Amino acid sequence: MKPKLTLVGAGPGDPDLISIKGVKALKQANVILYDALIDPILLNYAKKDCQKVYVGKRAGIHSLSQEEINQLIVDYALKFGHVVRLKGGDPFVFGRGYEELLFATTNGLEIAVIPGITSAIAVPAIQGIPITSRGINESFWVLTGHTLNGKLTEDLKLAAQSSATIVILMGMTNLSNFVNIFKTLGKEKLPIAVIQNGTLENENAAIGIIDNIELLVQQKQIKNPAIIVVGKAVELRKKLNNFF
Amino acid sequence: MKPKLTLVGAGPGDPDLISIKGVKALKQANVILYDALIDPILLNYAKKDCQKVYVGKRAGIHSLSQEEINQLIVDYALKFGHVVRLKGGDPFVFGRGYEELLFATTNGLEIAVIPGITSAIAVPAIQGIPITSRGINESFWVLTGHTLNGKLTEDLKLAAQSSATIVILMGMTNLSNFVNIFKTLGKEKLPIAVIQNGTLENENAAIGIIDNIELLVQQKQIKNPAIIVVGKAVELRKKLNNFF
Repeated sequence: MKPKLTLVGAGPGDPDLISIKGVKALKQANVILYDALIDPILLNYAKKDCQKVYVGKRAGIHSLSQEEINQLIVDYALKFGHVVRLKGGDPFVFGRGYEELLFATTNGLEIAVIPGITSAIAVPAIQGIPITSRGINESFWVLTGHTLNGKLTEDLKLAAQSSATIVILMGMTNLSNFVNIFKTLGKEKLPIAVIQNGTLENENAAIGIIDNIELLVQQKQIKNPAIIVVGKAVELRKKLNNFF
Repeated sequence: MKPKLTLVGAGPGDPDLISIKGVKALKQANVILYDALIDPILLNYAKKDCQKVYVGKRAGIHSLSQEEINQLIVDYALKFGHVVRLKGGDPFVFGRGYEELLFATTNGLEIAVIPGITSAIAVPAIQGIPITSRGINESFWVLTGHTLNGKLTEDLKLAAQSSATIVILMGMTNLSNFVNIFKTLGKEKLPIAVIQNGTLENENAAIGIIDNIELLVQQKQIKNPAIIVVGKAVELRKKLNNFF
């Protein structure tokens, strides 16, 4: 029984958006460490004697630091064998997956990655927003709203000048600053959407333009976890009139 | 039997990287229209009486135009019911998926989308390249190398100034121009990878820096379909020494 870590991307929320390969890894796992945004129904794929360990944040309970999670992975693998680390979305999209792999390999574990469907693309898609469309945009740019220093990334000033569809993950607390960057560039009319609980039944979205999005978000009471999407592609959804 | 189109993303190559939801759609389909980059093993999920129609490019045979594919979707749906359009990667990442949905809904079809794992993130991942890593980059930018006018997108000049990991799809014919943009900015030492047939057994990759990548690509005879990845995150793979 070799100690091994497999990072698995669970996808954006809907438990049927995990890959076949991800399910196969869950079926083989001796231990599954899972996050807050994981649908617990996915744990039903596990073997009877598989240990399922919650490592996400929960109100009122001390949440584990990244260093503690890294150490847990190694400890479980050395004791039980194959650890699957089940993460929301894709493990390399702002998921700190690389840090977990690096710590694991440095401590002698075998390592593997199974990619997931990232929320950055899938959540707009399920709202009828294509992240790219021929003749509309030639690129898309995905940024974290939650940088090391707590500020908006400098990359955003470049992104705002481009034709890209821009997607911000974990950016709700900086929404005002974000909107102001576009206003400074005279892009008050640019379409923008803010989507909470994307791909799930309780999905909630505000869709407007830079000028009115803050008001719409307030009216619709959109909160984290939410995804912000900006660009001409956002208004294409209007034409998909019988979507779903 | 309602006429319906479901776009399904098959993922980056490995047939086990399709989602459970995608497989369920394949099982229900009356007709499957599939592309060149699809593994034919995925067609085994189909019902016995499902019609499987190849609409990709094949050497020596006239390949269908986008307009012809759009019309085929509508014709099949009106005649047989549920058409699944199986596309490589994610249907909205430079896949012309929006155009197909729009034509379908305009012609009275019910429409749906099932996202897929995009090659833009998964192909670097399987090579041990995390598209984001805390402290290394705060964004990633995905561009098409194949724009309407055949030139490199203007967005690239902005992307090259940022901290983003940059991914170019379908960009091999413009590799020289692309590399020159980074040289002009004094980024000759920036890590870059070019990966052909990502996630498949015949995967082939050249990994170096801006200054030597053209030579490496020549030596390794990398051809389309290939993905180009540039940024500091590329060199993180060196530390994942026992990857896979």
